[in-house]
Formats: sequence, structure tokens, C-alpha cells
Amino acid sequence: MRLRFVIRQVGLLFVVLGGAMAVVALVGLADWLLARDEASERAASLALMGSAVLGLLGGGLTWFLAREESATLGRREALLMVAITWIGGSLFAAMPFLAWAHLASAGGVEAAVGHPFLHPADAWFESMSGLTTTGATILTEIETLPRAMHLWRALTHWLGGLGIVVLFVAVLPTLGAGGKRLVRFEVSGPRKEGLGPSIRETARLIAWIYIGLSLVCGFSYWILTPMDAFDALCHAMSTVSTGGFSTKNTSIAHWDSPALEWISMVFMLLAGVSFALYFLLLTRRWRDAARDPELRVYLGMQLVVTFIITASMLGKPIIDVAGHAVSGADLATHLRAAAFATVTIHTGTGFSAPDYDHWGPLAHWLLLFLSLIGGCAGSTAGGIKVVRVWIAFKVMIAELEKAYRPNVVRTIRVGTGVLDADLRLGSLAYLLGFLAVLAIGTALVAVCEAGEPRADMLTTFSACAATLANVGPGFGSVGPSQNYGWLGAPSKVVLTLLMALGRIEFFALLVLLTPRFWRGT
Amino acid sequence: MRLRFVIRQVGLLFVVLGGAMAVVALVGLADWLLARDEASERAASLALMGSAVLGLLGGGLTWFLAREESATLGRREALLMVAITWIGGSLFAAMPFLAWAHLASAGGVEAAVGHPFLHPADAWFESMSGLTTTGATILTEIETLPRAMHLWRALTHWLGGLGIVVLFVAVLPTLGAGGKRLVRFEVSGPRKEGLGPSIRETARLIAWIYIGLSLVCGFSYWILTPMDAFDALCHAMSTVSTGGFSTKNTSIAHWDSPALEWISMVFMLLAGVSFALYFLLLTRRWRDAARDPELRVYLGMQLVVTFIITASMLGKPIIDVAGHAVSGADLATHLRAAAFATVTIHTGTGFSAPDYDHWGPLAHWLLLFLSLIGGCAGSTAGGIKVVRVWIAFKVMIAELEKAYRPNVVRTIRVGTGVLDADLRLGSLAYLLGFLAVLAIGTALVAVCEAGEPRADMLTTFSACAATLANVGPGFGSVGPSQNYGWLGAPSKVVLTLLMALGRIEFFALLVLLTPRFWRGT
Repeated sequence: MRLRFVIRQVGLLFVVLGGAMAVVALVGLADWLLARDEASERAASLALMGSAVLGLLGGGLTWFLAREESATLGRREALLMVAITWIGGSLFAAMPFLAWAHLASAGGVEAAVGHPFLHPADAWFESMSGLTTTGATILTEIETLPRAMHLWRALTHWLGGLGIVVLFVAVLPTLGAGGKRLVRFEVSGPRKEGLGPSIRETARLIAWIYIGLSLVCGFSYWILTPMDAFDALCHAMSTVSTGGFSTKNTSIAHWDSPALEWISMVFMLLAGVSFALYFLLLTRRWRDAARDPELRVYLGMQLVVTFIITASMLGKPIIDVAGHAVSGADLATHLRAAAFATVTIHTGTGFSAPDYDHWGPLAHWLLLFLSLIGGCAGSTAGGIKVVRVWIAFKVMIAELEKAYRPNVVRTIRVGTGVLDADLRLGSLAYLLGFLAVLAIGTALVAVCEAGEPRADMLTTFSACAATLANVGPGFGSVGPSQNYGWLGAPSKVVLTLLMALGRIEFFALLVLLTPRFWRGT
Repeated sequence: MRLRFVIRQVGLLFVVLGGAMAVVALVGLADWLLARDEASERAASLALMGSAVLGLLGGGLTWFLAREESATLGRREALLMVAITWIGGSLFAAMPFLAWAHLASAGGVEAAVGHPFLHPADAWFESMSGLTTTGATILTEIETLPRAMHLWRALTHWLGGLGIVVLFVAVLPTLGAGGKRLVRFEVSGPRKEGLGPSIRETARLIAWIYIGLSLVCGFSYWILTPMDAFDALCHAMSTVSTGGFSTKNTSIAHWDSPALEWISMVFMLLAGVSFALYFLLLTRRWRDAARDPELRVYLGMQLVVTFIITASMLGKPIIDVAGHAVSGADLATHLRAAAFATVTIHTGTGFSAPDYDHWGPLAHWLLLFLSLIGGCAGSTAGGIKVVRVWIAFKVMIAELEKAYRPNVVRTIRVGTGVLDADLRLGSLAYLLGFLAVLAIGTALVAVCEAGEPRADMLTTFSACAATLANVGPGFGSVGPSQNYGWLGAPSKVVLTLLMALGRIEFFALLVLLTPRFWRGT
């Protein structure tokens, strides 16, 4: 194990995060000087600046001291690096939240007295939720935060989303580590042509696609919807990363704008598509992109679920998360509400507009299934990923035949690829592992919340499902109009770890628990 | 496909069921002559006798006409036979219920007016629940049934349990069909020694073990507990088959007897053990039996869950399903309540004594997990089976290592056996298939029950889990003090099919849906 290399990369991560904090601190500084909300903004800019200095100095020093000659990365180093990146990064990203709350409440800011961010578990939950693009929040009063804090929340989403697509499309496939087998399989089409001659080149291209998508999304919000420039910026970062943090208590429902809902749906959908497919579009290989089986299943599932939910809701009033009846309870309104809930849950964004908590068990179960499946591999979306579920489905069909023809071996194709035995077992193991982690998490949260009446069976389960699949809102007491603030600190730590497990496709964290990982070469 | 052979076996099944009905009809006749409850008992004995005559004549004729020379059974024939056995057998077994309700309500029996058994879907639900040893009931007023109907309900359990152990321990392993791979693997120990030289011999031995266990259980109930002979008989058949039907509305809680609860726990535990292990005991190979990994995991899980639930309940009052506080809320009482719930749910019996519906989410989730896992393969218990979960667990651990050592292949042992690649994939596929069927069932029930306030997310899910795993009671509106009577007929049909799917380890029914099954050789 070459720990030196891993430590160096973590140092680099802290420098990047520190740099981002410094930029956000400038916004706080500007707001402070413009006296928008003096005490609170001052606390925010101080908290961010202090954290930035710590990150830049500490990270830079680590990076410098741990430098070494060789730069090749083995599988075990990569796994350890991924695990440390998300755990360490989220702990560091929680610092501004924690520091702001303490500085502001000491400075007499009313909104900061008794604020959840005073507690380390809450601040860590929020920063992990940000970096993993989950979007679950422990905040009840979101709008009292200073603008710099809003920007930092949105930026954790954006940086986390960028990190994950670069990691899964550019870095891991070349290493053959972690989630490798599936990602390599999935992006084998575009990579075969040698689009990116090196990791660095591929990563750069991915980053530009991500930045481009963010800019188009942000300008669309600003120009075509009632959002102002600041909210458009924050929500663009939250949308393209399929995160879900909002600057408003009632999320997207705040603006009560059909145009806004449709536009955000378009960009959530785009963000849930594999970024490897955008390679194909850049090289004008439209047909290859349209033929991608994962894309077809992804869109097909959303269409089917949207129509079923629309049909199941006809004639019923639609209530948004602010508690208002949505005007115009016609077919178009129902379709929009159903589509919004389907897209926001399936892509794991978790914006709230219609309050799906009243839609009955059919809509609930369909949304829950979609949230576990998640978006496409190589996107910013969480969950099991469409391609894995699709492969597992094909493997299961082949296994059925074995009941009466045990010696027949069928070739299983997904797109242009053929599934070998290893990939068959691997995809089923991943699905089961996901469900097993979900079950263990649910039991742990149930232990932590014993005696809490709000933590019923549905809530404990859906809290774990919504964090593990990086969705955000769940059902029951963690539903779209609720938040995670009422849970105890131990539960918050469990859910925080579930977010990390889900985001890095959990093998990278679980292997650290096996003694064999640390042994030998 | 040699349909002729399959048809002949179904004829034989109808003869056996018809014969059983005739025996029960004699009890009804005796009760009628002794004027215990004249009109109702007369209706019951007429209903049973009529069904018996139909079964004996129809089945006998079919058996006679469809006879043929060869008697070898192929894989596909076996699968088809298993599917038809449970579907056809349960439809036939529902006849006495349906006929009794119509005869009795026409005859002016007050308890039969508006009785659930007047509806075919309800009667089929009950008979399938009986034959699959599920024990879920659509009855609210159980005690108004005539004794002959009670006996027929218990007998469906007992015959279903006998059928399933003979099928899975004696018949299927020799054929290599259906659930074959696991069962063959699991009983390879005892069978290697050639205990049963032929199917017939093995089946006879299994049947004797089953009968012996039933007799000991029945006499224990009669002599050591407050039960009278009739209730002891009915409950013994219900216990050894891990069924769960009771003659009382409040099930085991009716007698409020700790001795009864402990004795029933012992026999439920014994019934959940692989009957192949009793072979070992018969040949005095105690050590081999004690070394069986499935047995150890089975008992270990029950112990751990019992202790966790006991700890989580300390200090809280215990309410039984009759709504009474259980006297003596000391540690022993808590331990007994926790152990009873654990054993009855894990073995899929589903007797009710303590009302676990008030025990909080931790106990609920643990009981739900246990109910899905179920007892040992080759027992009368339902669910996924301990050995499959154990194998899947070992496969998952091995898969974890592949994340950083993709080329290492480890040998996986379970007991004395080694898992080949086929069995690894098969066990994961079975688990996932079970969960997929559970998910599809839940969505279907949610569709059928749209608009029914009692059918919330938890209820729709746990109704499907409790029927697919052949447990009986679930949570929420199908909890231990509730029943399935309030569900609509379409839901009842879905749940009835889930019981059959779960009982015959579902491959046998699902393969019938694949076109390839019906094609070629």
C-alpha cells in the first residue's frame, strides 16, 4: 500500500476545496460590505475565509511533503483514495457551516441561535449531502442562511457532481478499480475510438461538458423563469449535479412556475444521462447515442412511471410542498406534477414541488423503486444505476431457463457488449449488496431512533433509501415537505455514511473493512 | 412435453385430497348426528362429502384414462406438475369452503350469512393459504366455523407441509429439477450414504418422520396445555407444517398459557429444520447434524434477534393480540414474547400471541428480515431459506475482494460442499428474484387497492412479504391482530398467487411464463 501517494492526493483535494471556499468567501465579503445582513454575512465570510486558509495551507503542505517520483496508481490505492476523498472532503466542507453558526450565534445573529449547524453531526450531514449530491437537509429554516452559505451549499453539490463524473468516466475505467467493471463496460463504446488519449484529456473534456451544461441551465433559469441571478446560479449547480439543495424552504414550489418546473426537469434528465454519451454527441455520432440501451431504458422507465402516476391521480387535487393547491387541476397539471416527481426522484435530485406524500401507495412504491434504480452509470445521479438493473434483469431471465435446461448457456448482450460470467455475478452481487447495506442501515437507524414516534418503519427505511441512493427526500417523516433535522446525532452519522457508501458505489468503502485489503500486495 | 404424465399425477392428487375430504366429512357427520350445531355441521359434511365424491371420481377417472407405460419424469414435466399441483389442488381444496358457506347460508345458519367463504376469491385465498402453509386468513370470526371446517383448514396445512418436504427432499433432488441445485447441495451429506435407495423409500421415511413429529406435538398440546383434544389436533397439524391457522380468533393467545407458548415454540423450531437432518438423527449421526452450517445459522439468527428484541422491549408492557396486557411483565415474560414472535415469524408459522405491532421499528424490521429469510431448505418453512442467504453472504464477501484483486478466485465452502460458479450465480439470482417478485406483487396490490385508506405503503408491502414467504401475519392493516378479509378480490388473487410462488420456490411457476419452456425438447 503506497499511502504516501494517497495522502498527497487528499492534500490536493483540500487545496481545491479551500480555493472554492475562498471564492465563496469573497461573495460573503461583498455582501458584508454592502451590509445586506451585516453580522450574519460577516460570520459567513470569516468562517469561509478561515476554513479556506486552513485548507490551502494544510492541503498545500501535505501535498508538498508527500510528493514522490512515481505517479502510477494501483487498485488498492485508488479505492483508499476514493474513500478518503469523500470522508475527508466532507468533514472539511462541514467546517464553514460549523464555524458560521458558532461565530454568528456568538455575534448575536438571531437566526443562528440554536441553529442546527452548531452541532458537528448536523454540519457533517449537510456537507456530505452536498458533496455526494444527495440534497437531504437537516435545515428547517433554509432562507435565514446568509447568501455565502447558500452558495457554499450549492457549490458542494457542483464540485461533488463534477468529481463523481470525472472519477467514474475518466479515472476508474483506466484503473480497472472499484466500480470499474461496469463503467468500463458501459463506456467501452466511446472509449474504443480513443477519444481521450489520457486520463487528463478525458477528464478535461468531461469537465467542459459539465461546465457547459451548468451555464446553459443557469442562464435558462435566469432568463426564462422568475428566478433572480443568484437563485438561478445556486439552482443550476444543484440541478446539473442532481443534488437538490435549494435556497428556499419550499424548494422549486417557491416560485409556483410551470416554466421553471419544465426547465428544471429537462436539465435533471440531462444530468441523469451518462456523460460518456455526451462524448458521442460531441463527435456527432447521434445514432450510437440513440441506440444506447441504458438511455432507452432510462427514458422508458420515466415515461411509463409518469403515465401510471398521472392516471392514478386523475381527479384528485394536487398540493405543493408549501401546502397550496396547485392551480389548474387539469390533465396538463397532473402530468407536470407526476413528471416532476418522477424525474426528480429517479435522477436523485430531490427538488420539491408537488407534495407526493399524499399520492397513495402505488405512486409511492413506483417512486421508491425508481429512486433505488437511479440514473445512468457515468452520470451525477445516484442509486444502483439503470445499466446494472438492466443487466441483472437479463441475467435473471437466463437463470429462469436453467430450471429446466441446466446445461444451456446463453449469450447475454447489452448494447454491443457481451456479458461474461464475472460480470453476471458482479451485477447481481452489486444489487444485493446495495439492498443489504440498505437493510443494515435501516436496522441501525431503528436502533438509534428507538422510542422516537416519528421514526416508524416506513420513515426509517425511506430515510436510508433516500440517502444511500443520493436522492434526498423520502417518505413519511422525511417526506418532501419534511427534513432530517429531527433525527438524533447517531442516526445522522449512519445516514451520512450511507450517502458516502452510495455515492462511491460502496465497494470502495466496504473493502476497507475486510482484513485482506490491508494485507500483502 | 409429456402432458399425459402430468395430467395423471394431478388426477392422483385429486384422489388424495378427495379422500382427505371424505375423512373430514365423517367428523362433520358425527357432529351433525350428535347435533353439536346441526344446520352448520350438516352443511359442512355435505359440502365436504360432495367435494370428496367429485375429487375421487374425477381424479380417479383422470388417473385411469391418462395412464401410460413409462414413468420417468423429465425436468419440464416436474416443473409443470409442481405448478399445477399447487394451483389445481388449492382450487379444489377451496370447494368445501365455498360449498359450506352457500349451503349453510341457504339453510339459515346465521354465522354463514354474508360469510367471506361465499366469495370464490376468499375461499381460494384460504385454501391456498392452507396448502402453502402460509396461515394468512380472510376470516374475522374464526370461531363460528363448524368443527369439520376447522379440521379441513388444519388438514390443508398438514397435507401441504407433507407435500412440500416430500417434494423438496425426496422427489426434486433426484430429478435435478426446479429448486434442485440448492436442495441437492444441502442434503448431499445424508444422501451420499444412500439412506433412501429410491424416491419411494425416501418419501416414505420423510412421511413417517413428519407423522411422528405431528403425533408428539399433538399429544404434548393435549396433555401439557389447556387445549382440548380437537384443538390440540388442529394446532399440531398447523404447527408441524409451520402453517399458522388456529381454531380461535386470538390464536395461541386464546389460552393465555406460557406452557403452550413454549411447547409450540419447540415444535415450530423443529419444523423449520431440514427434514434431511432427521435422517442423520435416525442413523445416530448426531455430530454431522450438529455440524450442519444451516442449522447453526438458523438457530443463531433466532437467538440474536430474540435477545435484541427482548432488550428493546424491557420496561414496556406486553399486549397480546386479544388486547390484554400479559401478566407478569418481568424479564421471563419479555423473553417469552420476543422468542415467540421471533420463532413464529422466522419459521413462517404465524401463530399470534403477543401483538408485536406495538414493538417499534427495530423489532418490526428484524422480524420482517427473518420472515423473508425463512427456515431451512427441506423443511416446511417458507421464505428464501437460511442456506441460500448464507451462501449469498459468502459470495458477496468474495465479490468484495474482487474490487481490488479482480483475478483472485477463492473457494467458497458451505459445510462439506464447495460452491461452483453456477451455484454462486444461482443463489444470488434466487434472492434477487424473490425480491423482484415481492416488488412486483407490492405494486400490483397497490394498484388493486388504490383509494383504500388501510392499504398504505407498509401494509401493501408486508401483505406481499407475508404471503410470498408463507408467513401469514404482516404489519399494519394485516398485522397479527388483523386479517386479509378487507382486501378486494383482485388483491386476494395476487396474494394467493404469491403464496403459490413462494411455496414452490417460484421458479416452477415463473418458467411457465417463458415461451422457451413450451418450445422444443
